[in-house]
Amino acid sequence: MARWLTVGAAQLGGIARAETRAQVVDRLLALLHQAHAMGVELVVYPELALTTFFPRWFMTDQAEIDAFFERTMPGPATQRLFDEAARLKIGFCLGYAELVADAEGEGGRTRRYNTAILVDRAGTIVGRYRKIHLPGHAEHEPWRRFQHLEKRYFDVPEPGNEGGFKVWRAFDGLLGLCICNDRRWPETYRVMGLQGVEMVLLGYNTPVHNPPAPEHDTLSLFHNHLSMQAGAYQNGTWVVGVAKCGIEEGCEMIGGSAIIAPSGEIVAQCATQGDELAVARCDLDRCASYKTTTFNFAVHRQPQHYTLITDRKGAVPPD
Amino acid sequence: MARWLTVGAAQLGGIARAETRAQVVDRLLALLHQAHAMGVELVVYPELALTTFFPRWFMTDQAEIDAFFERTMPGPATQRLFDEAARLKIGFCLGYAELVADAEGEGGRTRRYNTAILVDRAGTIVGRYRKIHLPGHAEHEPWRRFQHLEKRYFDVPEPGNEGGFKVWRAFDGLLGLCICNDRRWPETYRVMGLQGVEMVLLGYNTPVHNPPAPEHDTLSLFHNHLSMQAGAYQNGTWVVGVAKCGIEEGCEMIGGSAIIAPSGEIVAQCATQGDELAVARCDLDRCASYKTTTFNFAVHRQPQHYTLITDRKGAVPPD
Repeated sequence: MARWLTVGAAQLGGIARAETRAQVVDRLLALLHQAHAMGVELVVYPELALTTFFPRWFMTDQAEIDAFFERTMPGPATQRLFDEAARLKIGFCLGYAELVADAEGEGGRTRRYNTAILVDRAGTIVGRYRKIHLPGHAEHEPWRRFQHLEKRYFDVPEPGNEGGFKVWRAFDGLLGLCICNDRRWPETYRVMGLQGVEMVLLGYNTPVHNPPAPEHDTLSLFHNHLSMQAGAYQNGTWVVGVAKCGIEEGCEMIGGSAIIAPSGEIVAQCATQGDELAVARCDLDRCASYKTTTFNFAVHRQPQHYTLITDRKGAVPPD
Repeated sequence: MARWLTVGAAQLGGIARAETRAQVVDRLLALLHQAHAMGVELVVYPELALTTFFPRWFMTDQAEIDAFFERTMPGPATQRLFDEAARLKIGFCLGYAELVADAEGEGGRTRRYNTAILVDRAGTIVGRYRKIHLPGHAEHEPWRRFQHLEKRYFDVPEPGNEGGFKVWRAFDGLLGLCICNDRRWPETYRVMGLQGVEMVLLGYNTPVHNPPAPEHDTLSLFHNHLSMQAGAYQNGTWVVGVAKCGIEEGCEMIGGSAIIAPSGEIVAQCATQGDELAVARCDLDRCASYKTTTFNFAVHRQPQHYTLITDRKGAVPPD
């Protein structure tokens, strides 16, 4: 048996702050057309793929901040992408900053999320994920060479409703979404693994330099792959990780976009720091080789011994 | 600041079924003396280090099975190891099969565990761990070239009492134990990470050939390192993984014993398939570089989104 899904990791180089959404969508369309030529059925774009990575700047003017957010999806700038992808019968995953005015079930407050959507081959949004593990900090830290203010500009979604690590039936498989820093947390993959996920799609913007821990800088690409490969193997799932990379407004970001098999092996990888497509023909049925043996959860997991994972947030050493 | 702990991964080659415990302890002592010559303060021996890996055989005679178990620790065969280690002021971690007659708090039943102990530099047992993730199967499966009957011969410990992933204050740090298959499960490291663990000690017996999934055989060494490196990085802890390896009673087992830094990097590794010592001088204070930044759990974890991890044992796909 085999369920083939040909996937493209559509890596992006840097997006300048002055670059318009129309210019960025032109780049997304160029990658879409390359993907079409290679028989790709699902294209994965990075996190916050429509603009520069704006959390690197401390801003106080809410209008200036909100200019980086989308109020509708598709919207004026992205309708072209939806239309062309539907015409070519290519699904896609796209990351963007989402502004939800009068958010239902959240007291009518305006919410801002770091969001990814899954769009099927007909151009319909079939899944929406709002980033849970927001990295960085909430207050201005002028000593940093650049800021990482995701905790300031984005909300963490509440569980339930549209919040949480979900898995959707799409593309003849079980697909899940997460974003950037989520990929470093084994809980991310496990919650989706417990829903039988067969392919996790994720985009990232990861600076090479981590101001609070510069001693990790030389390892940033290693940590990126290590986390995704372990998540794939330990849950028997494909993982497609896609970077926005290269030099962006003076900040160097890692590339290393990769398509990873349920074995944990990297089967396709970008080798530049710019716009580039890596493609793999993925058999979703290969997941079963892990899900029914070493990682047969129903047979081998021991959740009665895992209670600290949900009972405790921070680490507490023993007395 | 630095808290140095010089650790030795004391890998063992195969142990024949006919080999006596006295012969094995001679080998453990030889490694102990090598360790002493290299300034090692803590030696880590493999899982079930006193006998051949007996779950590879289907046995029905309980006396034959119980002959592989220890009823006391130290016992007649292991007292020499305790005495010599204490004389040299070297602590150690040792895996063995533990028989507990009339187990307290368990209804007076006889229990059999796959156990590891942590012994301090004075020769006192300061920690005991009983394996939670027992791999393999409980019934005879004659189609296999060899059995893996851990689910038949061992009990899973109940939570509480002496059961569970614990962390002990020892060797001027926070040390945890797990065993073999535990290392493939991110929950193992996370439960200890939530107790601030700074070094995880583990032994393993891992056949190269996995009868239910022979397609994984060429990846067994990769999966071994991938799991331990991810567990180290994602919890900011040292991991010391030690194999019993080589050809044992016709069954080939992986080596690859490794000492892994909180960065996920392998800093020392065995390169044979036999008795061999790999040594590293480990700074327990290096953990803080991860525990206070990327993996500052109190700041970044979102346990309200992890509830499936404890609510659910097996995977359940969405409707």
